[in-house]
Formats: sequence, C-alpha cells, structure tokens
Amino acid sequence: MTGRAGNAIARCMTEDLPFGPALLPAGFVDLLTPDARTEAQGVAALMDVFASHGYDRVRPPLMEFEETYLAGTGAALAEQSFRVMDPDSRRMMVLRPDITPQIARMAATRARGVVRPLRVSYAGTCVVVAPVAAEESGREVMQAGMELIGLDTPEADAEVMSVGAEALSRLGVRDVSFDLTMPPLVPALLEEAGLPDAQRTKVLRALDRKDAAAVAEHGGALASTLIALLEASGPAEYAVAQLAQITLLPGARAIADRLIDTVAALRERCPDLRMTVDPVEFRGWKYHTGVCVTLFAVGRSEELGRGGRYLCNDDEPACGLTFRPNVLFRLTPPAPARPRVYLAQDADQAEAARLRQQGYATIGGFTTGAQALEDARRLGCAHILSGATCAAVS
Amino acid sequence: MTGRAGNAIARCMTEDLPFGPALLPAGFVDLLTPDARTEAQGVAALMDVFASHGYDRVRPPLMEFEETYLAGTGAALAEQSFRVMDPDSRRMMVLRPDITPQIARMAATRARGVVRPLRVSYAGTCVVVAPVAAEESGREVMQAGMELIGLDTPEADAEVMSVGAEALSRLGVRDVSFDLTMPPLVPALLEEAGLPDAQRTKVLRALDRKDAAAVAEHGGALASTLIALLEASGPAEYAVAQLAQITLLPGARAIADRLIDTVAALRERCPDLRMTVDPVEFRGWKYHTGVCVTLFAVGRSEELGRGGRYLCNDDEPACGLTFRPNVLFRLTPPAPARPRVYLAQDADQAEAARLRQQGYATIGGFTTGAQALEDARRLGCAHILSGATCAAVS
Repeated sequence: MTGRAGNAIARCMTEDLPFGPALLPAGFVDLLTPDARTEAQGVAALMDVFASHGYDRVRPPLMEFEETYLAGTGAALAEQSFRVMDPDSRRMMVLRPDITPQIARMAATRARGVVRPLRVSYAGTCVVVAPVAAEESGREVMQAGMELIGLDTPEADAEVMSVGAEALSRLGVRDVSFDLTMPPLVPALLEEAGLPDAQRTKVLRALDRKDAAAVAEHGGALASTLIALLEASGPAEYAVAQLAQITLLPGARAIADRLIDTVAALRERCPDLRMTVDPVEFRGWKYHTGVCVTLFAVGRSEELGRGGRYLCNDDEPACGLTFRPNVLFRLTPPAPARPRVYLAQDADQAEAARLRQQGYATIGGFTTGAQALEDARRLGCAHILSGATCAAVS
Repeated sequence: MTGRAGNAIARCMTEDLPFGPALLPAGFVDLLTPDARTEAQGVAALMDVFASHGYDRVRPPLMEFEETYLAGTGAALAEQSFRVMDPDSRRMMVLRPDITPQIARMAATRARGVVRPLRVSYAGTCVVVAPVAAEESGREVMQAGMELIGLDTPEADAEVMSVGAEALSRLGVRDVSFDLTMPPLVPALLEEAGLPDAQRTKVLRALDRKDAAAVAEHGGALASTLIALLEASGPAEYAVAQLAQITLLPGARAIADRLIDTVAALRERCPDLRMTVDPVEFRGWKYHTGVCVTLFAVGRSEELGRGGRYLCNDDEPACGLTFRPNVLFRLTPPAPARPRVYLAQDADQAEAARLRQQGYATIGGFTTGAQALEDARRLGCAHILSGATCAAVS
C-alpha cells in the first residue's frame, strides 16, 4: 500500500493558485499539506533531540510589554518589533520578533530558583516588521532552539553545537557547515593595543570587508597581527593551528585560546562535523561575548540557524542555538503521509480503527459499490474497506 | 528508573515566584516544564488522531490584512482583534483572534481546486483583545481543530464530533459532555409563523432566559410549541424523543429532523458518549447554519471546545470542531518526562547515545567522583553514567 495517490492531493494543495499578491501581506503565507505537516513533525523531532539531552521545553508568550522585552539583550530588536497598545494596562506591547530574549528573562524571573546549569528548549512563531536578511522574504518566522544557562566552558559551547548537529542529522539535513567566529576577539585586541577611535573604525571597516591592504594601511603596530588573523580563517583545524601561532597580548590571547579549546571540544564530540573558523568576523553579532556559530547548508546562502555565547541578563553565562524551521524544512524530505483507505458506507468500524492504529488514514465515505470505488480514487485512496474486507483500488 | 527527582525540578519551574503582575501583560503567561511539554505533546496527539481520519494539517499565518480577515465569517471578530499598520503595503493587518475564518478563506482560495470533501486540521496561537469568556483570563489562546468541508449530512456532523470524542479519549480526558444545539431552529420557527418583530425580540429574550412564563406570555399562537421545545431538553435520547412528537411547520420540522438524525448518527458511532440536546439554545452562535456542539468536562464551567455547521465562504457546507488546549490541558495528566541520567566527565558517549535512544535524557556533566554524584542529585538524575557503567544514585 502506498500514499502515492495521497501525494497527488498534497501537490495540488501546495500549488500556488493565481489569487494575486494582495490576499496576504508580504512575508505571510498559508502553509498547506505536506509543508505544514513537515514543519510540525520537524519541530517535534528537533524538540525530541533537545529533550534527550535534558533540555526541557518552555513556552514564553507571543506578546510582552515593550519596556520588559526591549530591556537588555532585546534592545537591538526595537526596529524589528510591531507594537500595539494594551487596552487593559494602557502600556505598549510588542509582538515578539525573537524568542531568545524571552528565555533570558525567564531564566532571571520564574526560573531563577531552578538549579544550574539550566537547559531549556523552545519552539514558536515570531513576527518581524521587515524580513531579517536580504535573501529572505518571511515576516512570520519560526524559531526552534535551546539554551544552556549557567556554564561558561568550552565543553558547554561544544555541547550546544553538538546537540544542534545531532538534531540536523535526525532531520536528514546533510552537508551543513558550522561556521565559528569569536566576535569579542578583534574589539579586545584593538582595545588592548590602545588604538585611537578614528583608526579603530577604519580597521574594523577594513576587517569587515576582509580588505588586507586597508588593514595594513590603518592597522599601525597591529597591522601584521591583524593580517595574520585574517589569514587564520578556513577549515577549523587549519585556522586554529594558525591562530595558536600568532602573538597576542594576554587579553586577546585568552579569547583566542577559548576559541581553540571550543573547536577541540566540539571536534571530540563530532569527529566528522564540517567546521570552519573565522577569528576576525564580528558582523551581525551584537550582544555576544564568546564563540558564535552560523549554520549553512553547503551551497546555499540562507542561514539554517545561529547561536553563541552571551551573558544572560548581564550576569549569567549562557550559550544557545536557534534553528530557523522556515529555512530548514525546505531542505528536509516531506514528512510521509499516512496511506489512505476509503471507508465504504458499510465499512466495519472496528476494522477501520485497527487500520488507523497500524498507521493508515481512514477516509469516511458515505457511498457504496461503484460510487464508493470512484470516490476512493478521487480522494487518493489506494485501498477501500467494505465490511471487514480491505481491497486494493485498481 | 523513575523521573521522580526530575519532577521536583519541574515543580520548581512551574512555581509562581513573586515578580508581580507587571512583568507580563494580563492574559499572557510563561509556560514552563512540564506544562509546555504537556501542551506540545497534547496538541501533537490531537493532530495525530485527526490525521488518522484523513484530516491534513494546514497552517495559516498569524497576521492577515484586516479587510480579508474580517470579511464574511470573520466580521464577528472585529472587536476581538489587535490591529497594526503594515509598513510594506500601508494597509491594516489583524493579529488573528481565531483560526477558523482563515480555514474558510483557504478553502476558497489555495485549496479551491482540491477534491471535496476537504478534511483539514490546524493548531496555532491566537490573540484576543480581551478574554473570550468571563471565567477565562487568557488573551493568548491556542486553538487546535478540524474542518470537514463540502458535505452537508448528519453523517458528516457525526464524523466531526466522533473524531473529537476519540481525540479527547486519546488525551485521557474523561467525562466530557457533548452538548448539542440547533441555533437555526427557533429563528426559522418564528419566521415561518410570521411573528411580528417586537414580539419576536421578547420571545427570543424569554427563550434565552429559559423563562417558560414569559414564553407563554409573548409566544402567541406559538406559545405551546415553544414551551414544548423548551421542555425537549436534556439527555439526548430523551430530548429527541420529545422533539419528534412536537408539531412544527415544514421548515422548522426539517431542521428539527436534521438534529434528530445527527444525534442518531453520532450515537451509532459513539454508543457511550455523554450527549445532551437543547433545541432552543442559540446564544453565542453567530454564523452557524446547523447542529452545533459545546464540549464541557462534567462539573467544570469552561468550554473544552466547540464546533458546528456553517457555510464556508457563504457557498460551501462545512462542519468543524475547535479545541481549546489552554483549558484542555489543565485536565490531562502531565506528559511524562524522560528519566534523567547524569553523564560524568568520563561517560562513554556511545552508551549515552544508547540510553537516549531508550528514552532517557542524558545530562551532560563535566565532573567526576564525589562531585559528579552530588551534581547528579542536584540535577534530578536518578542514575549516573561513568565509563560504560550506569549506576543508581543512592
């Protein structure tokens, strides 16, 4: 028995019909079969992998008070947030553009008394005013992620990333590159070397463009170090070997060594993981205080997820990873449909229940004989149950 | 091995700490462990029952254009909807207070070409400006439901309600009463009898209060019929037996007979279902055109769900049922947690993976010896894995 006929229906349901762009706001979509099923089952699979490592599910609300949400790490999200007035309190509320600041808030409030390290997972919908990245079109954005709060070690970084890798593997997503960066490294280096502000801005811009000539021009006494760092980029083992040999002042050295240790800890857990390191990259990271990671499917430009180390509520070390199911599930095979059995009017209900338990979908029919056979075909059923007899639809 | 120690953590996480009412807007909550897990697993169980009867999952967006959403059946929801301006189109968008109007819209647009009957299921979050019912406090409201579109028969009504009953049974929710009503009956009766408008208003008010004396006073020639209908209320078999004997004009008779047939069809599928009928009830139903049902747990006042028959986009017969997980999962046992195993620093990773596959949660520890034992206890782990040896934590 196969679900092939059912898939024809599925295809029909996901086909775009010409109702024009004005039906729904840009970036909001109707998800039909099988995409909605693939997304739901995929999120459940991610949550199950997280739970198997002790990450307990939490569910913060869709809306919060603006002043609570945008405090601390949420401040960077102000421009991305839709706001409405709460008629109850007369205070402004935001529709969350991101779940992670809510996890930090929960860790400091309702979960403050829970023993550390605290491991939590979450999955839910966010809404952004404009699409996050140029190549993206969605404004309703799903997030599914995990946070490890209360530990600041290379092993903790490695745990989060390796659980993420296991989750991707469970979903059947192959050839994902874990691209590691250390956003605090360059700022610490410039600070420690006492570079004047104007020069610092020029150096940062040059590093951002990976422009070695401009780095040499503006880097002053740091020029050779910075160029060595620029070159210490690529496959993880190559990059950390380079990084280990560069002479750095003590503050920057400690940060670089932490990146090296994290790579080693992650490699120990995931011998086959595709991993790159770029020690000078800092773009797009705002409140991060340690190793960060971006996940790309090889050959594709959209991020599958990202994460990194930060200070939860400015006082507790934390490391998290957030997947973007909207992107991820374009790469996963569609969740299989239950094969369909048409129930003729005289179908035995106990037998129908047995078929459902075995994994079939029984489609209630209200016809008999030739009409039932026609209806079964029309409804994508490969089998028909009449009385207690299940027969193939020829 | 038990998850008892894990449950202590769970309790701690769900305990309300004194951060005051101002942290979150009224009606929005942080759901922690185990509530968030119970909700997610419960919704997945509902969706699985629906899928086993051929109801395919769809996922409409969280926001829509106001003019699209509030057209047709959505109009009744205008007061319940938060609105924001879409900076992209300069049109107003609503944050959905209800998913069902979206399903009707999808049936008429992207799913217009799909063969009928169309069976779909959905689960998602809605936001209402003020709590829906007096006994409720939530403004972030989950919905999980199913719609059967394209059939107008007692069997179709019965299918939807019986699948709902099976879903409740799967969740372990017992003693649920299915309270059936027929909102179009009384209006049809008054219309057919040609009662003047002023009198009609008085009669409706009297029926709404179940005030037999006032019905007698204002009912005119219909008084005895209406009082008989008032009395034809109670356990389903008693009510329909009464209803069958009342003399009605043809239009009202056809509507009453449809209610009787639906009860019979539902009883055939669910011999043990607790079912009541109130043929004069019409409160709270706005766009419904046939049998409606409200689900109550015996002895509790909040609705677990409701549904009924309506015209999808004014032209297609449909019947649906929507559960309210926020209420439902207060009545279900908490979803069991994976029992927890502490991984000492030297834990064998292959053995840990095997334990996860068997249903355990492995908690990454970074300690050994006596410290590991202490950490295991502190983190609610009943077992500890050291090397390849899993031992009970005494």
